[in-house]
Amino acid sequence: MYELHFGVPMAGAVLCTLNVRHDSQMVSVLLKHSDAKFVFVDYQLFHVAKGAFDILSKTRTKLPVLVLIPESNQLSPEFCNPISGNLEYESLLGRGKLDFEIQRPKDEWDPISLNYTSGTTSSPKGVIYSHRGAYLNSFAAILLNEMPSMPVYLWCVPMFHCNGWCLTWAVAAQGGTNICQRNVTAKGIFSCISQHKVTHMGGAPTVLNMIVNAPENERRPLPGKVIVMTGAAPPPAQVLFKMEELGFNVTHSYGLTETYGPGTVCSWKPEWDSLPRVEQAKIKSRQGLQHLGMEELDVKDPVTMKSVPSDAKTMGEVMFRGNTVMNGYLKDHQATRDAFKGGWFRSGDLGVKHPDGYIELKDRSKDIIISGGENISTIEVESVLFSHPDILEAAIVGRPDEYWGETPCAFVKLKDGCKTGTEEIIKFCKDRLPHYMAPRTVVFEDLPKTSTGKVQKFVLREKAKAMESLTKNTISKL
Amino acid sequence: MYELHFGVPMAGAVLCTLNVRHDSQMVSVLLKHSDAKFVFVDYQLFHVAKGAFDILSKTRTKLPVLVLIPESNQLSPEFCNPISGNLEYESLLGRGKLDFEIQRPKDEWDPISLNYTSGTTSSPKGVIYSHRGAYLNSFAAILLNEMPSMPVYLWCVPMFHCNGWCLTWAVAAQGGTNICQRNVTAKGIFSCISQHKVTHMGGAPTVLNMIVNAPENERRPLPGKVIVMTGAAPPPAQVLFKMEELGFNVTHSYGLTETYGPGTVCSWKPEWDSLPRVEQAKIKSRQGLQHLGMEELDVKDPVTMKSVPSDAKTMGEVMFRGNTVMNGYLKDHQATRDAFKGGWFRSGDLGVKHPDGYIELKDRSKDIIISGGENISTIEVESVLFSHPDILEAAIVGRPDEYWGETPCAFVKLKDGCKTGTEEIIKFCKDRLPHYMAPRTVVFEDLPKTSTGKVQKFVLREKAKAMESLTKNTISKL
Repeated sequence: MYELHFGVPMAGAVLCTLNVRHDSQMVSVLLKHSDAKFVFVDYQLFHVAKGAFDILSKTRTKLPVLVLIPESNQLSPEFCNPISGNLEYESLLGRGKLDFEIQRPKDEWDPISLNYTSGTTSSPKGVIYSHRGAYLNSFAAILLNEMPSMPVYLWCVPMFHCNGWCLTWAVAAQGGTNICQRNVTAKGIFSCISQHKVTHMGGAPTVLNMIVNAPENERRPLPGKVIVMTGAAPPPAQVLFKMEELGFNVTHSYGLTETYGPGTVCSWKPEWDSLPRVEQAKIKSRQGLQHLGMEELDVKDPVTMKSVPSDAKTMGEVMFRGNTVMNGYLKDHQATRDAFKGGWFRSGDLGVKHPDGYIELKDRSKDIIISGGENISTIEVESVLFSHPDILEAAIVGRPDEYWGETPCAFVKLKDGCKTGTEEIIKFCKDRLPHYMAPRTVVFEDLPKTSTGKVQKFVLREKAKAMESLTKNTISKL
Repeated sequence: MYELHFGVPMAGAVLCTLNVRHDSQMVSVLLKHSDAKFVFVDYQLFHVAKGAFDILSKTRTKLPVLVLIPESNQLSPEFCNPISGNLEYESLLGRGKLDFEIQRPKDEWDPISLNYTSGTTSSPKGVIYSHRGAYLNSFAAILLNEMPSMPVYLWCVPMFHCNGWCLTWAVAAQGGTNICQRNVTAKGIFSCISQHKVTHMGGAPTVLNMIVNAPENERRPLPGKVIVMTGAAPPPAQVLFKMEELGFNVTHSYGLTETYGPGTVCSWKPEWDSLPRVEQAKIKSRQGLQHLGMEELDVKDPVTMKSVPSDAKTMGEVMFRGNTVMNGYLKDHQATRDAFKGGWFRSGDLGVKHPDGYIELKDRSKDIIISGGENISTIEVESVLFSHPDILEAAIVGRPDEYWGETPCAFVKLKDGCKTGTEEIIKFCKDRLPHYMAPRTVVFEDLPKTSTGKVQKFVLREKAKAMESLTKNTISKL
């Protein structure tokens, strides 16, 4: 996938990377939607591709060419009966011409890649990246990651996620070394860092969570400064705090597939060095300011399009404008128009502006809980849950309620061997939050996640909805 | 001047910075040529501006507004009789409105600044920089200088020279601190580095020469790694070598006013770390590869436009293409057309390509000496002269010769107290170069320089021409 980030655009084609966790059905939909001409498949995912081709062949006579990436240079026996017309990756490369002239884009706004959104909200949409935007966001990614020449980058961010936050191109631009893993585990991360002298890495908060909760025997001392970019979901302050304790240097970035991944960064100010570490972790969980490649970032009233005051209180929708915002959604003019209504890209995220201009997310528009007329930021409640010593993972959604409209419902995964109960968790929250924000219901179970590590709140919302609605007389006194 | 790099473009105007060493006559020509509306003058240069306004007022009734930057907030007595309509800088700022809306360019190719070339070759030409080019070159400058966030930058490069190689904007983009000096001296440089914990600086080889030849009592230990970008003229290997010995980390960049300053960088490869230091210094004096902001760099036959082979021998003209090449010369269509003939910007510099793609300058087209049909690279001869322990500065030009056409003539400035003579210098060169490349004539004197530290070879050429031509019978056996 890394090589194809260069070969495909240089051949004048558009790269569309698919999530490795999609099933054949989803892959067939995306191959059709994207009009894929070539499909490059790792041998471990051959069965998924085969299934997708089977589905496609029912309605189409012309299928894409399948190029298989085998484990070694020899095709394994399971591919003895290959899909007709398919190729093996190295033999395809062997057919290449050394004097092939790079096909540069005719216009810098021409597409370089197509990224299907992670599907937390609705059916996947194809986000179009331009050469211009990818170039500028790669430049910005170098700066966001404080990446000098010849970094050693450990891949934990999937390359199919916003082209690896554009670091696929950024690492190459700085002459870096890529360290890739088949699976992301705490053990693998510590071992790669130690063995390859990793200088930079990235990962969603779930990856950070994995690192800070790694058992002692899987940890290795860090060989030097390791800069970690986190994003994809707002990181709980406690996780950031523990990462710093382990010696990682965490930078928090925020963005969406539509902003080529990182669109903002929480730039650290020297005057914050003297604050207590808990305060520092809180500041680090802010989303910050737009990076140098993004023209404008603002928090606006989505109806009037007026900027909210920088009072750290008034919520509005986070909006972006600039070169590193997508061209639009493939074959979906209506969704593109909606996303850009008012001349800004509407992120769907709700946040506030601090007096220093730094933004802080409070919720996704659709995640926020409105209980008795009060807005409850699920991020704030989750942050308190994460600070509980027994809780490994947590997510809050609204549970329908006859009287309040909604009440906060917590889904919690405890650490191994821990046995904290519902009442203790609710009390823990009430001690640290306004009482109306504390969860009324606590469910103990594993959290469903997308391949990029985001909790699938729509699944949890369905679960909460399915529970019997609270009746007035079960409501505890506030 | 630093503040005006932001205020002028944000007001929707074009910034034109003038060389502080120009006289009133030159300034009047440039004010007229650039159609200057406002002239910002430091109090130390008020007499130059006054003289220029006197000249202008002979042919014009409408003069630019003069804005004086006083030493302190009080106007000194010499300005009691100011030019009519002039202003004092702080009072101009006082008139500003806090709610002024930044005037963004209508088109990204609109001019942001006008840079008059240093005038080593002909009458100054006004090089037009666009917002787009300046943005991209500033981005590139951050990377070239390996500048993480919040650098401390010591200004030795004049800000009127390619907008300080675009570091005016680049330092701001990284939230850096600017250390400015009224005059560039070795003592001042060491003292600033030590006092302000300078992390980055830049300077022409003459500045490096000043540093390595600083008397012991003016030197200070470096507080940490200091990255030095050098350019503007190819640095002699010996000077680079000595800088490294002092603990500076020197990167060599090359470009022209027409390429926004740096257009190439001699990127260091880890495999060179094990080479002898003399070899390393030689490699560092190469001009290298184009930076990430420049689309293409090549060495081409200026007539056929064919690329020269990458054999480190075949000379051609260095040419550039990309966003960080000027829009053109102001009010000079013919010069613009000539500069871009064949679709590439022609640098006028002659060089070779090494097998690894790195370019190395051999000479300016007009500087190269052709002696008995052989091309003599004055840079190569100068590099040998610089390695002589008694020589402080040296320059080679062609001296007209009846028989050979031209022969190399050396202008040399010895270090204080040194007394090496002509014969020793010629022998020193013959021991290290093909005999035809060794100078035939040696002149001991101070070298005339432009304000940016480039030796004015046209002055030396005139001097060499004025000397009696060598006759056949004075030619020593080769």
